[in-house]
Amino acid sequence: MYSSQWQGFTTDPNLMVIPIDDHLVHRGDGVFDVMRCINGKIYQMEQHLQRLERSAKAISLDFPPEHENIRELIRHLILTVGEKQCIIRVVLSRGPGSFSTNPFDCPSSQMYVNIIRFNSLPEEYYTNGVTLVTAHIPIKKSFFATIKSCNYLPNVLIKMEAVKSNAQYAVALDEDGFLAEGSIENIAVLTADGVLRFPGFERTLSGITANRVFQLADKLVKEGIIKDVMFANISPAEAYEAKEMFLTGTSLNILPVVSYDGKPIGQGSPGPVYSELSKLLWEDMTRNRDLLTEIV
Amino acid sequence: MYSSQWQGFTTDPNLMVIPIDDHLVHRGDGVFDVMRCINGKIYQMEQHLQRLERSAKAISLDFPPEHENIRELIRHLILTVGEKQCIIRVVLSRGPGSFSTNPFDCPSSQMYVNIIRFNSLPEEYYTNGVTLVTAHIPIKKSFFATIKSCNYLPNVLIKMEAVKSNAQYAVALDEDGFLAEGSIENIAVLTADGVLRFPGFERTLSGITANRVFQLADKLVKEGIIKDVMFANISPAEAYEAKEMFLTGTSLNILPVVSYDGKPIGQGSPGPVYSELSKLLWEDMTRNRDLLTEIV
Repeated sequence: MYSSQWQGFTTDPNLMVIPIDDHLVHRGDGVFDVMRCINGKIYQMEQHLQRLERSAKAISLDFPPEHENIRELIRHLILTVGEKQCIIRVVLSRGPGSFSTNPFDCPSSQMYVNIIRFNSLPEEYYTNGVTLVTAHIPIKKSFFATIKSCNYLPNVLIKMEAVKSNAQYAVALDEDGFLAEGSIENIAVLTADGVLRFPGFERTLSGITANRVFQLADKLVKEGIIKDVMFANISPAEAYEAKEMFLTGTSLNILPVVSYDGKPIGQGSPGPVYSELSKLLWEDMTRNRDLLTEIV
Repeated sequence: MYSSQWQGFTTDPNLMVIPIDDHLVHRGDGVFDVMRCINGKIYQMEQHLQRLERSAKAISLDFPPEHENIRELIRHLILTVGEKQCIIRVVLSRGPGSFSTNPFDCPSSQMYVNIIRFNSLPEEYYTNGVTLVTAHIPIKKSFFATIKSCNYLPNVLIKMEAVKSNAQYAVALDEDGFLAEGSIENIAVLTADGVLRFPGFERTLSGITANRVFQLADKLVKEGIIKDVMFANISPAEAYEAKEMFLTGTSLNILPVVSYDGKPIGQGSPGPVYSELSKLLWEDMTRNRDLLTEIV
């Protein structure tokens, strides 16, 4: 972990702490982003750092001076830990100050970076598919949903609903009843007429992986494997009739949904488009030099 | 500070920390409450602890075992610090676990209690009144607004708007455009026809002080000083025409608003009902044995 509080690195878990009066702790006043290092290379690092900057700007959070060296910091951390397969979590916080809500009580923002060993999901999630249910938790308002802030209680409760429903994942609906997003996953649907649809990012967090899958899917359109790819509203009723459904995310890549609200999706097993998208994404994650930053 | 992590107390600010993987830190997955100790007695302690329990239950947060001894813990902390005028902050968190959103990754919830020296607001806030503006930040959805969780980013941005507008306070509107709540303040209005109105608590946090002022105002109704006291929607237009406006809260008690969105409220100075309510509340805070828990 790196903490700007001490301007230093530590590998001792007991020192991986944050002051209780950092407004991140008592108000959730901070933003974060998470990226993945695969075989010593970080995938879409610039895209994640750009989103982090957008999130910070949306809440008028100034960058701490350390932010200028964020790339070297991450590199140094990963080299110190020596983990070629890891998750990098960067948090920008308002910093310690008072216990009030007033951000101007904090003399300077802070940065905390954690390197976490990458634990892959169980292999059967990818081979057999996963189950999904609709969550009843109200989604965040658009303004907040589009910021990757540390106000993730709705997301926590979405995950809780999944676990309590004995499903692996849950998806929340937006205010008009359309599919919005999972706890930390974006969703996509291959509709009955062969169109790959993603909910628009006006009301949900703009997923880095989702965006990339959207771009990659263009190849499948050209090859005639799918009819089209677009951002469009998806109702649960349409999703029940879908040929395939997918979850995407930084740590899970792309997952096939085989059951939604207890109804089988398609044949109830991962479909051919999942197989194609999964291949395309993995190739991109491991071979696309433009999107890979070499660390180790 | 008391931390259930170490089952101990510390007065060293450097040790007032929380593990970075406590889900409170990275997800805001926790609830809190704040109470005030006046002259060695805590005002409405039971009401605050009950609200803390309600908040925890709303997000299915189990109490850590330390919660059973919370009253003794608070007493011990205050006696250790020796501060007769202080603020007590109790936080219940999901606890350390993974860096995920999954609350079931956390083996046990945690409790953190901070004692903070009470700093009164500037005296002129009470004698001259304060300025208020309407915030443009969307208020939290009702489900979340009624829980005192650590997802306070909307509240932070409300405060930021106040500061940026050169006002002392800001109030957010609910989805129907009625006055909702301030950053950490409840609002009340004495309408042109002499009725004291509080926004209902279905969409905002149920204010302990607001509730008590509501009860105390009954005396003013009986004395004919005000016509009635009720929970009812208040539009900004009605507020602009108000005779008096008030903010209430645990640390601020009751404050007179003398300007709202640049328009003078009443005579532009604290009114007679403010003066009455302020006296009633202070008497209650210092003399009502039923609501005071003696510590020192």
